[in-house]
Amino acid sequence: MTVVTSELALLPTAIPPLDEAAAAAARTELDRKTKPRGSLGRLEGLAVRLAAIRAEAVPAPLRPAIVIAAADHGVAREAVSAYPPEVTRQMLANFASGGAAVCVLARAAGAELVVVDAGTSEPLDHAAVRNLRVGDGTANAAEGPAMSQAQAADAIGRGSELAAELAGGGVSLIALGDMGIGNTTASAAVAAALLGRDPRDVCGPGTGLDASGLAHKVGVVSRMLDRNRPRADDPIGVLAAVGGFEIGVLTGVVLGAAAGRAVVLLDGFITAAAALLAVRLAPAAGGYLVAAHRSPEPGHRVILEELGLEPLLDLDLRLGEGSGAALALPLVAAARAVLAEMATFAEAGVTDTGR
Amino acid sequence: MTVVTSELALLPTAIPPLDEAAAAAARTELDRKTKPRGSLGRLEGLAVRLAAIRAEAVPAPLRPAIVIAAADHGVAREAVSAYPPEVTRQMLANFASGGAAVCVLARAAGAELVVVDAGTSEPLDHAAVRNLRVGDGTANAAEGPAMSQAQAADAIGRGSELAAELAGGGVSLIALGDMGIGNTTASAAVAAALLGRDPRDVCGPGTGLDASGLAHKVGVVSRMLDRNRPRADDPIGVLAAVGGFEIGVLTGVVLGAAAGRAVVLLDGFITAAAALLAVRLAPAAGGYLVAAHRSPEPGHRVILEELGLEPLLDLDLRLGEGSGAALALPLVAAARAVLAEMATFAEAGVTDTGR
Repeated sequence: MTVVTSELALLPTAIPPLDEAAAAAARTELDRKTKPRGSLGRLEGLAVRLAAIRAEAVPAPLRPAIVIAAADHGVAREAVSAYPPEVTRQMLANFASGGAAVCVLARAAGAELVVVDAGTSEPLDHAAVRNLRVGDGTANAAEGPAMSQAQAADAIGRGSELAAELAGGGVSLIALGDMGIGNTTASAAVAAALLGRDPRDVCGPGTGLDASGLAHKVGVVSRMLDRNRPRADDPIGVLAAVGGFEIGVLTGVVLGAAAGRAVVLLDGFITAAAALLAVRLAPAAGGYLVAAHRSPEPGHRVILEELGLEPLLDLDLRLGEGSGAALALPLVAAARAVLAEMATFAEAGVTDTGR
Repeated sequence: MTVVTSELALLPTAIPPLDEAAAAAARTELDRKTKPRGSLGRLEGLAVRLAAIRAEAVPAPLRPAIVIAAADHGVAREAVSAYPPEVTRQMLANFASGGAAVCVLARAAGAELVVVDAGTSEPLDHAAVRNLRVGDGTANAAEGPAMSQAQAADAIGRGSELAAELAGGGVSLIALGDMGIGNTTASAAVAAALLGRDPRDVCGPGTGLDASGLAHKVGVVSRMLDRNRPRADDPIGVLAAVGGFEIGVLTGVVLGAAAGRAVVLLDGFITAAAALLAVRLAPAAGGYLVAAHRSPEPGHRVILEELGLEPLLDLDLRLGEGSGAALALPLVAAARAVLAEMATFAEAGVTDTGR
């Protein structure tokens, strides 16, 4: 039996459908611009999607925020990462003080950075850290459930509330970022459980495993699944069994962003796993997703295919943190600017051959 | 016999070698940053290249300009484009008044836009257009040489002078853009001549040809080559025989930018053909090139492979104008920012496992 909070139960129906009329108007407007039809390639499809999400033929400039959620993972005790668990909290401090890659890239892209503690092993006292702690890190999912069903629902609820607050305050694009030593292992288990895939299809080197480390990781994911037997048709059960607090919070952020008509810009594998959970909870959320990049993690490709998303960038990024999402932000802004600012054939006096 | 101006003859030796010491220092600095080694993928290689070009381990913020050069092509009379020749001049006016795609994207990226008339059929009187006219459009290269050897050398010299002026004024990145109805045909002929390829390998639909239009274009390129017999070892002869005034000016911009240690950001097929001419004139220019994107034009892929360049974006863009280069500019700026602004493991107190 699945335990859900009342807010969570309401979420799927709260996500508005994409505005197809705005999308059609945007397509017409793009074809009036001074360029051969379709010659801006994937930027044009992105502009149309922005119109559909924002329900405006020519959307206003997007106000972006990057939500970077950090949490610790009990399964990190199984030596599934090239980094020790204390790095999660050290990096949380680095996010808060502005020195991490995502901080630099968020500044470059003009995005607000929202640093969230979703449940590191111990709290970090820093004014720039938003406390959404669901617990002091998850339990070791290779030995039992990572968290309770109530904690899973709580994580999603907290993420959803945060997104609702951001969207309510005028944020119209929410990019996702993650930090958590061991979280590619948790994400691989989530993907394998939801998609019925073999762990070998969705496990990769993460941020630095060698071949034997990867083989060990596949074995750990298999134990997580054997031990907990999560059911593909029970997303909250999957999150509770083998997920992570940051994954749950990001799942909620996706749902809350979609409910608030904000564009959701995904980063790498962990954020994709969160998006997959969100879409299994509320299929309408899928229309709000934009994939920023494709990482070398095999599980990332598997989830993007399942979600029908073609990423904007393919730069061999494997850092996480929302770094890939931050790098794709200017492309999203550019797609909107083309729709809003380019002259039409009539305005510019340029011959339109209709090609 | 090749005719060259005296400035042109000096250019090859005037291009400084890449600064390998700065590159090595940048690599070391990147490995001290709070991220797994190499986890920012191709952004890291780009940051190292910027250091090598700018001869600074941590380059100062780049000041970008986009040079968009327009010219008319006699070969457009052979019906090789979906657009009539007058569109070149109409679009030049559109660039000057800020309504074209590249204008919107340059503003979004914070780049100066330098609009150059390299030789449209008749002059356009507009304060925002830089007059580097080599002639009133080229002759029809399907019937004889597109231009004289002196005009070819003149086009290169004018472009080189423009780049030297920009670099001297503090511009440290020059992105290339092109406009000219018929110029994918001219570029295909340049590529075929320099690389000894069959016209079928380097001709594509441009901005809107159908299959029969493409077959006709292949035939026109074959006639251009048969009629003029350009020699692969004579780049200026190739430019004169089958090129275009904007291609020549952009060739010069590449050479002048490299001589001034400015990063050269390529756009699509036409700018790649100009870069190939530049590298054949001065191989040292190759180190200064960054490929912004890969277009669907088959000749673009062929030239990028020849130049050993892996593009940053692959978004099915086929507009030209420098639009792809403008879209890649934020990635170049981000690569520099990572090198300049990220905290090191020591500064942030993050455990470094050396992985």
